[in-house]
Amino acid sequence: MAIVVGYIPTKEGRAALNWAAQECLLRKTSLIVINSQRGGGSFDADEALRFEEELKRIASELEEAGVSSEVRQLVRGVEPSEDLVAVAQEEKAEVIVIGLRRRTPVGKLILGSNAQRILLDASCPVVAVKAED
Amino acid sequence: MAIVVGYIPTKEGRAALNWAAQECLLRKTSLIVINSQRGGGSFDADEALRFEEELKRIASELEEAGVSSEVRQLVRGVEPSEDLVAVAQEEKAEVIVIGLRRRTPVGKLILGSNAQRILLDASCPVVAVKAED
Repeated sequence: MAIVVGYIPTKEGRAALNWAAQECLLRKTSLIVINSQRGGGSFDADEALRFEEELKRIASELEEAGVSSEVRQLVRGVEPSEDLVAVAQEEKAEVIVIGLRRRTPVGKLILGSNAQRILLDASCPVVAVKAED
Repeated sequence: MAIVVGYIPTKEGRAALNWAAQECLLRKTSLIVINSQRGGGSFDADEALRFEEELKRIASELEEAGVSSEVRQLVRGVEPSEDLVAVAQEEKAEVIVIGLRRRTPVGKLILGSNAQRILLDASCPVVAVKAED
């Protein structure tokens, strides 16, 4: 049993990582961070750096609590949604955690296709997390 | 702090209720079940009955663990998504839990508008739960 979180170098990605780590501590379950190489969306180098730092902090926090974590870099030529759902199934994940953008008051934001596919295709619960303001 | 779950008389609705209750036990936080009267979708009397039974069982389980629960019937002339997001905000909810239909292998299921609005509008994390097979 594990919690699976998708890596995206955005503040939503970091929010998802943080929520997933807290849930791992609560559930005493391991964390699997999926870095799917057909990443989609723009790459934010600053956020990627912050993500790496956050990941280090979280890995040692989890280790101290006796909970394991791992990062998997996947380059399988499939959409990130497929990678996430497949790993969650293989690992019998308790939940998948993903980051979602916050809707602006005037914004007609719709859910991205990756998020929709994860929400619809996953057999385990999916947690959609927003970034802090 | 609380966990807010939307009431729908379907097996997905019951799955959401059960997940929410387990999460309340983990987080030692109260459960708020929202029964929004502009319900949308077909009403399943059998599932409604099972939901009531499940709710009773869960309420006593939570009470035994020292966690409170309540059911709120809302008739405010707004969409269920608005009720859920508003209550979650008022109560500074930790998460909102909703039920989602499982996609069939041939089904081109898309996310319902209520689910999409909750996912996009909520400021707290939203957990989407599927029914057991």
